Amino acid sequence: MILPDAGAAGSGRRIALGLSYAGQGYHGWQRQPQGRTVQGALEEALSVFAAQPVHTVCAGRTDTGVHATLQVVHFDAPVQRADFSWVRGTNRYLPADMAVQWACPVPDAFHARFSAVGRRYRYVLLESAVRPSLEAGRCGWTFRPLDGEAMRAAAARLLGVQDFSSFRSAECQAKSPVKEMRRVDIRRSGHLWCFDFEASAFLHHMVRNIMGCLVAVGTGSRPPLWLSEVIAARSRDAAAPTFAPDGLYFLGPCYEPHWGLPELSPAQSWLP
Amino acid sequence: MILPDAGAAGSGRRIALGLSYAGQGYHGWQRQPQGRTVQGALEEALSVFAAQPVHTVCAGRTDTGVHATLQVVHFDAPVQRADFSWVRGTNRYLPADMAVQWACPVPDAFHARFSAVGRRYRYVLLESAVRPSLEAGRCGWTFRPLDGEAMRAAAARLLGVQDFSSFRSAECQAKSPVKEMRRVDIRRSGHLWCFDFEASAFLHHMVRNIMGCLVAVGTGSRPPLWLSEVIAARSRDAAAPTFAPDGLYFLGPCYEPHWGLPELSPAQSWLP
Repeated sequence: MILPDAGAAGSGRRIALGLSYAGQGYHGWQRQPQGRTVQGALEEALSVFAAQPVHTVCAGRTDTGVHATLQVVHFDAPVQRADFSWVRGTNRYLPADMAVQWACPVPDAFHARFSAVGRRYRYVLLESAVRPSLEAGRCGWTFRPLDGEAMRAAAARLLGVQDFSSFRSAECQAKSPVKEMRRVDIRRSGHLWCFDFEASAFLHHMVRNIMGCLVAVGTGSRPPLWLSEVIAARSRDAAAPTFAPDGLYFLGPCYEPHWGLPELSPAQSWLP
Repeated sequence: MILPDAGAAGSGRRIALGLSYAGQGYHGWQRQPQGRTVQGALEEALSVFAAQPVHTVCAGRTDTGVHATLQVVHFDAPVQRADFSWVRGTNRYLPADMAVQWACPVPDAFHARFSAVGRRYRYVLLESAVRPSLEAGRCGWTFRPLDGEAMRAAAARLLGVQDFSSFRSAECQAKSPVKEMRRVDIRRSGHLWCFDFEASAFLHHMVRNIMGCLVAVGTGSRPPLWLSEVIAARSRDAAAPTFAPDGLYFLGPCYEPHWGLPELSPAQSWLP
């Protein structure tokens, strides 16, 4: 078992939060000495509401420009508050593009990151002769028509327990490149394509690197079987360039039911 | 017949454009001495591309914070360009939250505003205990549950040719408050409600003032028949406060088929 690492000085009352945000205005999740980050804005709001410093741990650190419909965060509450007070009180101090959706007490053994047994991402891609406008920063873009069947055939190559080194960025800190890809769904809705991924965990830039490859197949630059070659190479050089962060949404982690967290559904959002 | 009023010094080659934009970053459509406006940004981009000043006329002037999936604009082209060059060339100089969707030559008698025989708007409203975050600036919000049947009964009172003075802002420049409301559709999709309006034309703030009244009915503060009283009063004081601009989208004008404009569909967008 892995010990919780957040809020060593906490009161013993661990709280989990569900958090939505638009990533455009942030240098990613992780607090930095310079620059606006999601973690920085959240901890500031929590600390103002609790009138004491609050440290948070998230389920999946998102990069600059990446959105979340349901990031999950835990912290050790320095004060006692009713569950919905954590929601309403924190939201009062959060920027308009971030909001806590729910808060619930969890056992001290719960850890937003280490207790997660899976993660889900969605990539939203606009296929159009014209670049995004209303949806700028909220979707990727291709002006070339995409072949759904070819992309689905390629995506099937990604399933199962595999070494995903070819889709891993140089800065990735994961201990192992071996992950289990459980599901890749590709569907079209008008001019928009949605790519849903569920895996045990994701390497740094993994979805964006996979997207580069799937789009190369979808536009006919590469055949579907090429994905098997890319995976087998275990080298970043074998894959396509990293796709834009704009269309990437962290839909949330998966936890065992015994933790008793609220349903982790992005129903709140109007993602296609 | 009403004479066209744009680009008196034009070459006789009138062009219509379909334009999408997110309204959050703009002080509305109309060019002003101070402040960033949609018209200002569009005319600047067109003028850079054409290397000559270009003046535009739009179908429906939108307010600060109001979006458009398909604004229609006309101008008299000072230079000859292929249709898609107007799209690609203008988009190169437009901000990321605006894009021309299509361009097509139209007869000199076409006027984006005066040729329109109808207009369509959508209001998107989030019903949730928690305020918008990912959708901040893109939807209205109510934390009180809404009763769809009551709102539909109230909306039926709006149909037909009526004097809409009660929903008209003090700054409205329309000659007459009498307009024909042709359609009001109210539907729910998860946490989001969509209100679609089609009328011969709209008064200033008309949709936002109607929304205030429909939400008052939806939350049970007023009965559906109250809408008839509000209309009969012909006074702004009778109606509810103006609703936020955030959820308002101009879906586009309606023109007679003989003008030969492209289909005016918001399919490009992922509006719910």
